[in-house]
Amino acid sequence: MAEGKQLRSFVEVGRDSHFPIQNLPFGVFRRRGATEPPRPAVAIGDFALDLAAVSDAGLFNGPLLAGSACFRQETLNMFLALGRPAWKEARATLQRILAADEPVLRDNEASRKKCLVPMSDIEMLLPIMVGDYTDFFCSVHHARNCGFIFRGPQTPVNPNWFHLPIGYHGRASSVIISGTDIIRPRGQGHPIGDAQPYFGPSKKLDFELEMAAIVGPGNELGKPIDINDAEEHIFGLVVMNDWSARDIQAWESMPLGPFLGKSFSTTVSPWIVTMDALKPFACDAPKQEPEPLPYLAEKNHVNYDIPLEVWIKSKEQSEPSIVTKSNFKHLYWTLTQQLAHHTVNGCNLRPGDMFATGTLSGPVWTPFGISISSCTC
Amino acid sequence: MAEGKQLRSFVEVGRDSHFPIQNLPFGVFRRRGATEPPRPAVAIGDFALDLAAVSDAGLFNGPLLAGSACFRQETLNMFLALGRPAWKEARATLQRILAADEPVLRDNEASRKKCLVPMSDIEMLLPIMVGDYTDFFCSVHHARNCGFIFRGPQTPVNPNWFHLPIGYHGRASSVIISGTDIIRPRGQGHPIGDAQPYFGPSKKLDFELEMAAIVGPGNELGKPIDINDAEEHIFGLVVMNDWSARDIQAWESMPLGPFLGKSFSTTVSPWIVTMDALKPFACDAPKQEPEPLPYLAEKNHVNYDIPLEVWIKSKEQSEPSIVTKSNFKHLYWTLTQQLAHHTVNGCNLRPGDMFATGTLSGPVWTPFGISISSCTC
Repeated sequence: MAEGKQLRSFVEVGRDSHFPIQNLPFGVFRRRGATEPPRPAVAIGDFALDLAAVSDAGLFNGPLLAGSACFRQETLNMFLALGRPAWKEARATLQRILAADEPVLRDNEASRKKCLVPMSDIEMLLPIMVGDYTDFFCSVHHARNCGFIFRGPQTPVNPNWFHLPIGYHGRASSVIISGTDIIRPRGQGHPIGDAQPYFGPSKKLDFELEMAAIVGPGNELGKPIDINDAEEHIFGLVVMNDWSARDIQAWESMPLGPFLGKSFSTTVSPWIVTMDALKPFACDAPKQEPEPLPYLAEKNHVNYDIPLEVWIKSKEQSEPSIVTKSNFKHLYWTLTQQLAHHTVNGCNLRPGDMFATGTLSGPVWTPFGISISSCTC
Repeated sequence: MAEGKQLRSFVEVGRDSHFPIQNLPFGVFRRRGATEPPRPAVAIGDFALDLAAVSDAGLFNGPLLAGSACFRQETLNMFLALGRPAWKEARATLQRILAADEPVLRDNEASRKKCLVPMSDIEMLLPIMVGDYTDFFCSVHHARNCGFIFRGPQTPVNPNWFHLPIGYHGRASSVIISGTDIIRPRGQGHPIGDAQPYFGPSKKLDFELEMAAIVGPGNELGKPIDINDAEEHIFGLVVMNDWSARDIQAWESMPLGPFLGKSFSTTVSPWIVTMDALKPFACDAPKQEPEPLPYLAEKNHVNYDIPLEVWIKSKEQSEPSIVTKSNFKHLYWTLTQQLAHHTVNGCNLRPGDMFATGTLSGPVWTPFGISISSCTC
């Protein structure tokens, strides 16, 4: 059975669906109105394939997953901890049992009904227990735009930026999934003259288009992950909106960086697209100048060609309009460089940790509102 | 039975012990060499009182804790989630069964041997699963010292500092307990001239004396905790060493704040001293000028009189020498103000979260090396 474009599922998948058999992103769902605990799934067409049910049916029969309890959990953390060999085994099993020429589910109505749940019958949940969440600042175009806006054309980017992936710790407790309502944060803004600072609902609520990596096995405290092993620790990617209250952020950030201007909510997509599914979209990452220090120099310096757009529909609009257009491939510091840098001081990563790219701006200052409306710094 | 100085335990407690019956700090331990899972305890004299054993013996017989599984856990998180009424009930029960005039343990050798474990037979573990860890910057003397050093005598403290408790997110995964070896972090430092940045083991490893609060019930996302309810969410305090690699920190921190210069390890004491035990040491917190905004104005504006010292013994020294002397009472923004500020934007706190005060400097620039060797900013 070929992994590739020609692979087809017996589950009908519309041409515009994000969920063909080549994707199979992982999430966690609950049947609407059901009392059973949440369970892991992959998406296929308009269905969630219930991995607890697949496991109960004995269909995970590979050496690493047969008998494993990892799909009887309420999050994916146990599965993440198993590492790439188990992830690959799961993917191979799922592509096999979903394939058009495989009868095991296709021709067993009872089993098929247990395993394939229509998406209209489910609600999605945060698929991981996030231990720690880190936000990087790795798009050079975004760094240039921010630098230009805040410090003028002479010194557009801080001198450290080209030597290391700049990052900061974010708030893990307020990571939520797409579709969860955001409550406009209250907080302080710059005072005008000698008055008290502004206090009230943020007047400058903003979005930031990012993607975030979900960490697999991770490392022990004090044992950095080598740059060339880093990809073994990255399970997949989610799309992320790093909601930002610019007025709160501007007043509070000196000297220790963003805090309440960000911590009120961070939205991620409920489905995690695996790095294995993204492989066909790998492309060369931008050449780095100056050459990175040896601990950041990698044999396989790749990004992924993932077109990204942000559309907004305000109350006054009848149709949404596009405000940002970018691509993941513009990332200056790759995911593997971010991960290796994160651990070089001995900091330990754990399964389910999340690290985000920072705002992904494209090379062209488009008329779509990139940068001023979505600037990390 | 009086709670107070005259209360005495049948367990012998030395005059210099930190663990009289008035204290009873909470921790988690494991018997050395035992295969049983870790279990909660309080410290009394030279013993750990095993709370799983106390629970098994049916001695938690109050309305909130009878039958509760909270002391059969490997961390204190479930107990923390129960809130102050349960904490008070536990304290009252424990002070009663340990009192000199109470026979239930005193006169039952079998039960006493099960419950009271000599500290020499145990190892302590991190008592909580830290969800998120926040570090504040709330000592005015420390802020003045840092400002003076980094920005000169004209503008010693940032203008936002007197309006809000400045804070940033720290790394939760690398919080460890006292006695755990620290591995000197590797990382980048400022380049000299046009050279590549320095890379190697930190040459400026430093300590920061702080205390950290352990969060109880917490709040739902989007629902701030009122300043006058904040104390209901603070279980107790630990002493904290915010290890800092100054060279890594100085080079990486612009513009998003501390990251790898801090995330390699943060040490906390294994015993959490409860706010109920600290009550006799409450004192007025410093008067605040300008008056805080209403959401930070509290009826009960208190600190605690806790003298703090740091002693260092280098390889070359035969005896340790004192390098810092301070007191918790100098904190400008109180714990309750920190907590109320942290949630004012809707950010959710969870049981077991931790927030630290920032370096606690005293009002006098002593000859003991405060500030330059222990500066957050």
